[in-house]
Amino acid sequence: MAEKKLADLFYDTLKDVYFAERHILKSLPKMAKAAHSEDLKTAFLAHRDETEGQIERLQQVFEIFGKRAQAKTCEAIRGILEEGEEIIENYKDSAALDAGLLAAGQAVEHYEISRYGTLKTWATRLGLKDAATLLDQTLQEEKKTDVLLSKLAEASINAEAA
Amino acid sequence: MAEKKLADLFYDTLKDVYFAERHILKSLPKMAKAAHSEDLKTAFLAHRDETEGQIERLQQVFEIFGKRAQAKTCEAIRGILEEGEEIIENYKDSAALDAGLLAAGQAVEHYEISRYGTLKTWATRLGLKDAATLLDQTLQEEKKTDVLLSKLAEASINAEAA
Repeated sequence: MAEKKLADLFYDTLKDVYFAERHILKSLPKMAKAAHSEDLKTAFLAHRDETEGQIERLQQVFEIFGKRAQAKTCEAIRGILEEGEEIIENYKDSAALDAGLLAAGQAVEHYEISRYGTLKTWATRLGLKDAATLLDQTLQEEKKTDVLLSKLAEASINAEAA
Repeated sequence: MAEKKLADLFYDTLKDVYFAERHILKSLPKMAKAAHSEDLKTAFLAHRDETEGQIERLQQVFEIFGKRAQAKTCEAIRGILEEGEEIIENYKDSAALDAGLLAAGQAVEHYEISRYGTLKTWATRLGLKDAATLLDQTLQEEKKTDVLLSKLAEASINAEAA
């Protein structure tokens, strides 16, 4: 067996994020449905649409890398999304629900920010310039979503919950 | 049963982060032991010491909040740390090990950044000014660690792995 290199790590992590995004895609409509605030519902649904584009970008990155798009179980995103489901269950009739959903959404965003930051750096190191550009586009979207959620939290959601 | 409020969500999340920090404390020496690079070993061990201080701060926040320090299983950090263990297992004899460990460390940092950001905002909203200050101190430390890991990655680790 040949020694594993950065290219293997890149491919493994790409599969991990591909799994994560597809789970996030399924989770966002549930979060939107549960949310009380119209603004938060809208934010989750807009991010759902954005996630579809991000999945397509990942498929393009797989193609550039010359490998089949494939998902590999990502325990991290499973755990993070599970916490969001616990919030829906434990806070469903509470004024604090939206604050909890928002925080769960931000935990998802931060996981993605960390992963896309890593993948972008590795793609650059591997000389995959077009892949790095695609990964950076998604990274910027995730950062923007995180800022939007922070603003929503400070503007209204936490006030309603207190 | 009284309706759940932001104070309940704050307490639940505090317990979740308390669990997470105690698991991170146990995980960092394993990551340091596995790392090949001396700089990365040092970074993980320094963050281990910092984590001890962060756990003490959480205990102070529980005290300010008037509740017993208590941990609640955090599935998110379990999943995130599990991915780090997979890296150690799958890349242990590889030049890419350090790049993978570094990325795993950054995923941990980003989870914490998201949690401490949320807790700080909620503490402020709940009028717990001293708690917000303590949570912000940890938030700044986590951000600094993330930046340090990014620099390490760009400076050497990824080059060695490629």
